[in-house]
Amino acid sequence: MVMTEKVLGRPGYDVTIKYIYKRMVNLYPDSEIVYKTKKGVFRHTYKDFADRVQSLANAMKSLGIGDLDRVATLDWNTVWHLESYFAIPMTGSILHPVNVRLSPNEIVYIFNLAEDKALIVHEDFLKLAELLASRIKTLKAIIVVDTDSVPQKIGDVKAYHYEDLLKENRGKYEFPELSEDRPAFMGFTSGTTGLPKGAYHSHKAMVLHAMSVAIHASTFGQLKISSEDVIMHVVPMYHVYSWGLPFTSSILGQKQVYPGRFIPKVYLELIQNEGVTYFAGVPTILYMLLTDPESTKYNVSGVLFINGGSALPEGLAKLALKRGMRIYVGYGLTETAPVLTLAAPPSKYYKKLSQEELFKISLRTGYPIPLVDLEVVDPEMKPVPKDGKTIGEIVVRSPWITPEYFKDEEKTEKAWRGGWFHTGDLAVVYEDDSVFIMDRDKDVIKSGGEWISSLRLEDAISQHPGVSFVAVIAAKHEKWIERPIAIIVPKKGYEDKINTEEINRFLIEKFVEPGIISKWWLPDKVIIVNEIPLTSTGKANKRILREKFSNVLEETSP
Amino acid sequence: MVMTEKVLGRPGYDVTIKYIYKRMVNLYPDSEIVYKTKKGVFRHTYKDFADRVQSLANAMKSLGIGDLDRVATLDWNTVWHLESYFAIPMTGSILHPVNVRLSPNEIVYIFNLAEDKALIVHEDFLKLAELLASRIKTLKAIIVVDTDSVPQKIGDVKAYHYEDLLKENRGKYEFPELSEDRPAFMGFTSGTTGLPKGAYHSHKAMVLHAMSVAIHASTFGQLKISSEDVIMHVVPMYHVYSWGLPFTSSILGQKQVYPGRFIPKVYLELIQNEGVTYFAGVPTILYMLLTDPESTKYNVSGVLFINGGSALPEGLAKLALKRGMRIYVGYGLTETAPVLTLAAPPSKYYKKLSQEELFKISLRTGYPIPLVDLEVVDPEMKPVPKDGKTIGEIVVRSPWITPEYFKDEEKTEKAWRGGWFHTGDLAVVYEDDSVFIMDRDKDVIKSGGEWISSLRLEDAISQHPGVSFVAVIAAKHEKWIERPIAIIVPKKGYEDKINTEEINRFLIEKFVEPGIISKWWLPDKVIIVNEIPLTSTGKANKRILREKFSNVLEETSP
Repeated sequence: MVMTEKVLGRPGYDVTIKYIYKRMVNLYPDSEIVYKTKKGVFRHTYKDFADRVQSLANAMKSLGIGDLDRVATLDWNTVWHLESYFAIPMTGSILHPVNVRLSPNEIVYIFNLAEDKALIVHEDFLKLAELLASRIKTLKAIIVVDTDSVPQKIGDVKAYHYEDLLKENRGKYEFPELSEDRPAFMGFTSGTTGLPKGAYHSHKAMVLHAMSVAIHASTFGQLKISSEDVIMHVVPMYHVYSWGLPFTSSILGQKQVYPGRFIPKVYLELIQNEGVTYFAGVPTILYMLLTDPESTKYNVSGVLFINGGSALPEGLAKLALKRGMRIYVGYGLTETAPVLTLAAPPSKYYKKLSQEELFKISLRTGYPIPLVDLEVVDPEMKPVPKDGKTIGEIVVRSPWITPEYFKDEEKTEKAWRGGWFHTGDLAVVYEDDSVFIMDRDKDVIKSGGEWISSLRLEDAISQHPGVSFVAVIAAKHEKWIERPIAIIVPKKGYEDKINTEEINRFLIEKFVEPGIISKWWLPDKVIIVNEIPLTSTGKANKRILREKFSNVLEETSP
Repeated sequence: MVMTEKVLGRPGYDVTIKYIYKRMVNLYPDSEIVYKTKKGVFRHTYKDFADRVQSLANAMKSLGIGDLDRVATLDWNTVWHLESYFAIPMTGSILHPVNVRLSPNEIVYIFNLAEDKALIVHEDFLKLAELLASRIKTLKAIIVVDTDSVPQKIGDVKAYHYEDLLKENRGKYEFPELSEDRPAFMGFTSGTTGLPKGAYHSHKAMVLHAMSVAIHASTFGQLKISSEDVIMHVVPMYHVYSWGLPFTSSILGQKQVYPGRFIPKVYLELIQNEGVTYFAGVPTILYMLLTDPESTKYNVSGVLFINGGSALPEGLAKLALKRGMRIYVGYGLTETAPVLTLAAPPSKYYKKLSQEELFKISLRTGYPIPLVDLEVVDPEMKPVPKDGKTIGEIVVRSPWITPEYFKDEEKTEKAWRGGWFHTGDLAVVYEDDSVFIMDRDKDVIKSGGEWISSLRLEDAISQHPGVSFVAVIAAKHEKWIERPIAIIVPKKGYEDKINTEEINRFLIEKFVEPGIISKWWLPDKVIIVNEIPLTSTGKANKRILREKFSNVLEETSP
């Protein structure tokens, strides 16, 4: 990890998070931050927020947390989390939001690697904090939020009540001038294919990322995000910094809603009561909000949903449109801070294309945002033709890509080969420079030397009226090496009607005959289950599915 | 001048102009660039533009123009100028647009200081090119645009026809990866108070400036600039890089109009025919467009004018509003690349304030754009209270301020004292962080130890129905040291009605009695003239006025 300070030139100005903070306080002092705690819904202004950020900075200093120390968080989307997002990097420490959905073993592994010195923890995760207190030698302080009382110690580590700490340390804090290249945030990949890998991002990376997302979302196509919009932060703040949206919305001075732990009814209520105009999230979240038994009681008309993490199934997108929502897709990775593309169709298309065509484009992976240099390349690093057909790997360069995997030179070299960061995502690129991901490298199905996109198959199958959730994986096959199979959770009343024949009949009629997918893509088998295991980020856990089902074709073949 | 390259880290990505260019070509290949030449109005796409930029890069290479060489331009707002804006910095050379309104002596001085190696010159300035060819030893090539034929040599320097050069050098050009800290542009202050001072700006400065302007103009208040807007580039491209708008509009993929030499009728025609939605400029330009005898034949309704360079007189602003235009104000300096603030009122005010109040705010100097750290300070560098009354100097920090005056250590130290760049502009700051310039330091009137704002007095006097143009300057005074006098060009039919008594009667009634200005601000004398001399940037040349009139009170005092 490069921890050096670069010498400041005469302008004495580096691009740091402090300048987002200053803009918030100076230009938008009255903008609101709304937050849900165990006790209810509260709100304060950006100006109050700034006072609290300064108090937190004083508090961290009083605890001896300083230059380049890592401070971990285990928390939902709360106002306390937001305070850490600003105060910790602005004092020169590094914020390390930890994914609470990982296994305790993985969390211990991550803490050991990051050598976290302090932990800010939500009461809901106190058990985890106890485990960490006993296992992490570097840990010096545990600060608890959303709680009534805190013991003197958790294990052998001194414990503090967050609000008491702020009260005791109230006062101004002069945030120092820092190098823009200094690490500000640290995150770990979700690690479905091995142990989590560490990434970190500098002040400059976080600020330029926030600015580029802001420009694209406000000027490209019909998104037209502005300072008048109201965001609810749904993407977990422990998951790639909530996709950078806390900073994007802060630099724009938007009203922000921090809804806490995910409870569909609470989220729907906040959307309606607080006038939320947009939020981002994975498809699972949208699915749970729209299929909640009480969902239709709430008005979500006009609300923009920005999808990420997984491809948005067309069936789910249409459900959202029926409710009057607007839908766009974004794409990125933990290593890329994360946003690389957004899928709002360019304005010129609005005059030329039908609603249905625009809808299709808005579900693509999207158009690169400013400062993202993106190519889709073949194995020799040659760009594939922009024909919407030829599949290649997405490789990128941008100021906000992590310079390396933390303490892992080998994986770093591999990911950065040829001077580009390799995403491992396979995509086609269209003439208008938009990209469309066909598959994750590791999830792709290679049948007879040819790729089958599990995502596109899932998308097609999800449109069957009897399908609630579907995952397509590769099963081993004697002749073709791999063949697709579909694991399906049927809707109520369809349990007996869904089977291999019925799904293939549907696919042939709707997708094969109109030429949308090739016949050889049809799944060899449909397996009915009650539930599909999810990863910590809400995607189908295909690793587990493969373990369980990848031999199913060999077992039944003659 | 720091000419070092910084070592590229693993991400291999510096923020350079190349990434604006790539976005233009990839995401907006069909966007139009419209340009006026001597032969008519022409247009091509961003994609064609990119081909021409590559050919120009090849051409410069063939002429031996390379690393960090300075390339000067003497040109109007033309497509050729835009091509230089991209090709020259992207090859690693430095573009140096020269103000054609300076005196020949000043231009020779500037060329000598910058050591320009090549000159791209519009046919209109061939005489100047001949002078430079004989005086500038470093000059190796002169390239002429908007012309039919070019001699083999101009003086002793080889001469080229721009279009021939492009034809001969047609082909792809791989723009190199450059350090973001490398100088990209060089400009000189207009120098009303001495010889021009050189400033330069890095790739990073130019790109971040363009992005910050884009964010502010698209999300703050009601400006809502987007990729669908159409800009006409009115601010001369030799004047602080046309305020950076060629890059801002390019990164947004807007249709751009390059109208050539300023001819009011031509500009009005282009606004109407090309669907221009906004342009920026100094008040003089707006005045000339709106008072042209044929002006009312053209529809300018809905067009946004962003004022800069001088304060926008309220009378002129109201004239524009009557024509259905929208009006905002921006502020900056050559040294600051230039934009520091924009004056669109924040959205929250639209619910609370009257049209008249909003109008007043939109004429303020404005709100800092992202990444601009701005303070109004007293002589001890202490921020003045945000009361809208206390006058202090605007000092700034930002990634796009020139790090130094070219080859002038003394002025550099003075301008950057205390770690802030001193603008020399005196302003008040309001509670909402907007600033309002009361005067240029050097134009301020200090009467009895107290400041009088010549700009505010001009603004008030301009609202008299008989005043066409007014400049207020300091005249020497025995007792008070300085007193304001007003030099006025009357409107037709008012020549006999305007005098000191009439102006003061008007000011007392409209401004002193309502408490808007103090009684002691009333000008001691009104002088009627047929014409007011202008500087090269279209402002009243107060230096000349002071030379002529500053003794007028002493001469007449007893």
